[in-house]
Amino acid sequence: MTPYKPATQDQLLAIRVNAGIEELAKTERFTSAEADLVEAIVEGVGQFAAGEFAPLNRIGDLEGAKLENGVVRLPDGFKQAYDEYVAQGWNAIASPEEFGGQGLPFTLACNVLENLGSANMAFNLLPMLSVGAIEAIEHHGSDAQRAKYMPDLVSGKWSGTMNLTEPQAGSDVGALRSTATPIESGEHAGKYLIQGQKIYITWGEHELAENIIHLVLARLPDAPEGSRGISLFLVPKYHVKDDGSLGPKNDLRCVSLEHKLGINASPTCVMSYGDNGECIGELVGAENRGLMAMFTMMNNARINVGNQGVQIGERATQQAIAYAADRVQSARAGSPDKTPVAIIEHPDVRRMLLRMKALTEGARALLYYCAGQVDRGTIGDNAAKLRAEVLVPLVKAWGTDIGIEVAGMGVQVHGGMGFIEETGAAQHWRDSKIAPIYEGTNGIQAADLVTRKLGLEGGGVVQSLIADILAESADEPQLRALAQDCTSVASWMSEEASLDDRLAGSVPFCTMLSVAVAGWQLAKQAKAVAGGAAPALAKTKPVTARFFLDRIVPEAMGQRAAATGGAELLYSLSADAFAV
Amino acid sequence: MTPYKPATQDQLLAIRVNAGIEELAKTERFTSAEADLVEAIVEGVGQFAAGEFAPLNRIGDLEGAKLENGVVRLPDGFKQAYDEYVAQGWNAIASPEEFGGQGLPFTLACNVLENLGSANMAFNLLPMLSVGAIEAIEHHGSDAQRAKYMPDLVSGKWSGTMNLTEPQAGSDVGALRSTATPIESGEHAGKYLIQGQKIYITWGEHELAENIIHLVLARLPDAPEGSRGISLFLVPKYHVKDDGSLGPKNDLRCVSLEHKLGINASPTCVMSYGDNGECIGELVGAENRGLMAMFTMMNNARINVGNQGVQIGERATQQAIAYAADRVQSARAGSPDKTPVAIIEHPDVRRMLLRMKALTEGARALLYYCAGQVDRGTIGDNAAKLRAEVLVPLVKAWGTDIGIEVAGMGVQVHGGMGFIEETGAAQHWRDSKIAPIYEGTNGIQAADLVTRKLGLEGGGVVQSLIADILAESADEPQLRALAQDCTSVASWMSEEASLDDRLAGSVPFCTMLSVAVAGWQLAKQAKAVAGGAAPALAKTKPVTARFFLDRIVPEAMGQRAAATGGAELLYSLSADAFAV
Repeated sequence: MTPYKPATQDQLLAIRVNAGIEELAKTERFTSAEADLVEAIVEGVGQFAAGEFAPLNRIGDLEGAKLENGVVRLPDGFKQAYDEYVAQGWNAIASPEEFGGQGLPFTLACNVLENLGSANMAFNLLPMLSVGAIEAIEHHGSDAQRAKYMPDLVSGKWSGTMNLTEPQAGSDVGALRSTATPIESGEHAGKYLIQGQKIYITWGEHELAENIIHLVLARLPDAPEGSRGISLFLVPKYHVKDDGSLGPKNDLRCVSLEHKLGINASPTCVMSYGDNGECIGELVGAENRGLMAMFTMMNNARINVGNQGVQIGERATQQAIAYAADRVQSARAGSPDKTPVAIIEHPDVRRMLLRMKALTEGARALLYYCAGQVDRGTIGDNAAKLRAEVLVPLVKAWGTDIGIEVAGMGVQVHGGMGFIEETGAAQHWRDSKIAPIYEGTNGIQAADLVTRKLGLEGGGVVQSLIADILAESADEPQLRALAQDCTSVASWMSEEASLDDRLAGSVPFCTMLSVAVAGWQLAKQAKAVAGGAAPALAKTKPVTARFFLDRIVPEAMGQRAAATGGAELLYSLSADAFAV
Repeated sequence: MTPYKPATQDQLLAIRVNAGIEELAKTERFTSAEADLVEAIVEGVGQFAAGEFAPLNRIGDLEGAKLENGVVRLPDGFKQAYDEYVAQGWNAIASPEEFGGQGLPFTLACNVLENLGSANMAFNLLPMLSVGAIEAIEHHGSDAQRAKYMPDLVSGKWSGTMNLTEPQAGSDVGALRSTATPIESGEHAGKYLIQGQKIYITWGEHELAENIIHLVLARLPDAPEGSRGISLFLVPKYHVKDDGSLGPKNDLRCVSLEHKLGINASPTCVMSYGDNGECIGELVGAENRGLMAMFTMMNNARINVGNQGVQIGERATQQAIAYAADRVQSARAGSPDKTPVAIIEHPDVRRMLLRMKALTEGARALLYYCAGQVDRGTIGDNAAKLRAEVLVPLVKAWGTDIGIEVAGMGVQVHGGMGFIEETGAAQHWRDSKIAPIYEGTNGIQAADLVTRKLGLEGGGVVQSLIADILAESADEPQLRALAQDCTSVASWMSEEASLDDRLAGSVPFCTMLSVAVAGWQLAKQAKAVAGGAAPALAKTKPVTARFFLDRIVPEAMGQRAAATGGAELLYSLSADAFAV
């Protein structure tokens, strides 16, 4: 496996041009995000990720996480790397300063995750899940809970998990059955007895952190059915005493680990709470408002998963370029010189590499554009907040789709070597495949886009996004055409289509709009680079942007027929008839 | 893993409508391919594959092939299933009758492989590779070699391998270095000492068959450099005595097995020939004409790999439909009835399933159309032979591309379960990934299309193919538009583009033309079904064909810009600049 080389320059460009960090740094909330610090963070975390996380990627895949007598073991090196991560303060980037965080923009937290995840996607899920727990407690916990749990979560001394899924309750979270029973008296009066089994709990058990704070969705007695009867509980692995020191172990355990297609170093746990009827949890937020609390974290969590597409795309692209520049095979077609050349010189290999690079950079531009809108939203810019709402499903769905495509092309560039596990290209492809599934499948993202998001402000939020693209793409005929196609599809969906019709065309439309926004943001980067913004990218950016705008954008227009094809055809076959 | 249910009805439809088996049966060569026998074969091999090969698919993936003291072991059951395969005569379908074969059309051999490979892609590589060895000896061996080796290869008692690749010689076969030295005197006078190491040798060593006939490319002393200095040798694992009985073991061995992403039950061997200087081989065909001999087999081998896309597509689709019909999750969006439904009822899951089905059926239609043209070619129809030449890269490249796409969507339909190996969906996706790589990468297929094939008969072969599509698609506006786009691209490539330009657009063009031909052949199926050809498909075929023609065909038009984008942009970056 090729070592990870942080894409520092392209990240800085995206942070400046697409997230607009300089503008953000002018606001009171983010004054500390000045240029020097931003550069230091991006460079620093890149070096840390390359030095500490990347070397563990292959061994993490090979050996994976193992459950031994209830304890999850990671390969040698994970504990030290995590300790170093905590010691260097990377976990605390965007958390509130009052709990030991640095209070920096979400944009920079995205960059920390991007680097860590490009280096080691499975390992990075540990900090990534902790972010969710931190946000849940920050926004919904009581003052006492915040004081007790936040500092060690923010530092990374403790980690966090999210417990939603049960076997019968996957995408349909409302179907969950875990219970929480109020404790009336005794030492734990006011708390709850938690009982139930949860599946797919990422980093649900491990010993890298001193404690694990599980956030668990469960039902109170007599709670309403479905999603309105779900409450959120904080369930620590080790009880935390009032002085902050750790007490005895709570009644919860990891029953088993899943044997997965990829991200093998990330323990995916089946968790059992209350086997002995003694699992104690605290209510977070109001009763029966657990799902609403989850929604608060959902946007950032989805962006963070979309980020994984960028991460794996970057890593796979680097590896493919290195291989193609090294592997000599055949002379150039039609060349009088019959000397074999590195395969990067063959036209179709170049096409693949350029496509990989263009898709990754496009997804990165979209990611940071979205992150910048989120940051504006948190300081009261309502238009940005709404725009981020529209962008989130694009980042998550399209970002993870291109992650798979790029990683798959990476395997292809390697030829036969790509199919051999030792090469490492296959691991990226296997790892990439989870991202379109978790944190709301990409189908659910697309549904979110064409139902909730398309209707925001009477359609105005999507319309203004497309209007901005059109306003800034006078010199990009293909991008204009795609943006106009997006307008047509959006109008059809809003005015003519049934709900089923919209859902039937949701994924194609999501792709079209994603490519349009990514193309627009990439064009913006190219202009900035032409204006001297990033001398190190002066050669590559015009080429990747052009490739994206002239070849990938038109491809997305091919989705229009499917986006407006409607649902009738899909339902002209009964479910039984499918199986013939 | 869902049991494999042979797609007998759709296969028979494709064999009749796309391959035109009834017309073939009217020729002297193929009189035996009458309707009853065809049906008996398709049904029989389907049942055999489902009963004997399919149950071994999961255990083959889990346990894989293992090398122990030079011997390759397969999981329990493989030996018995292979014996039964031989006993039932499936190996002999298309081989010449004089050597014990049935002399049936290649079309039916395709169907045998389709069923076996859908049931167990890794296992099916054993018979698939033997086909190559049989064809090599049939077409290039001496009478004595044919008499000695063909009968037991045809029956399947012995298996065969193809040995081309060496570490430095992958796509560039001409770079190989294995040697063959004439033996002047003694017992083996007239034969050759073979020396060298070969990699990626599929089923290079195993004990399911009594002997293995290796076909090995090597260089004679003083042979010209490059591909003109390569000869073909027959190297048996066990020497074969004149009476046909087996002699001592030849000096060859399996050094190691590759640890692969998929097809784990197929031993991918590093083979070493002549470690002790005693590896004896026989020349097949003329000196220095080895690569030409390989070319004879190449078309069928490439079609057989394209077939694997159909195979894995079918299997993944069946599994996804079964899961989606069973998994209950959430009520229909917008429905007043809040009862959760099977996910097959949700619009986007339907879209995925229908797309999987449409792509698989389209690829099957293309596969059998091509096979039928091959069969016509072998009985002197030169136009069909030339058309098959054009179709081969489409079957191989697009067939295997859709195999991955469909298997990937199959994982997605399963949600979180898809990422868990026990489910089996992930295995199909992993298995599918080899097919675009071996037997000439898909990039090489596309290069073949835009260089050799596009120029056949001054461009007339491709033109007449497109003309036929246009002539029969008056009522399909999207298909017509795509066919016209193909004409424009082909004209641009022939008249304006440089060789590099053609190669830069080769993969997009290959996709466009493949979708056009598959759509055309699927429309033909739909008409036949409307005319009563396959009552069992009366409900599904109109829907899958419509989905393909109205949603997948327009998507392919989105490739036009990339097909004609040219090479200049690809070379505006130097190889060094890529890595920045």
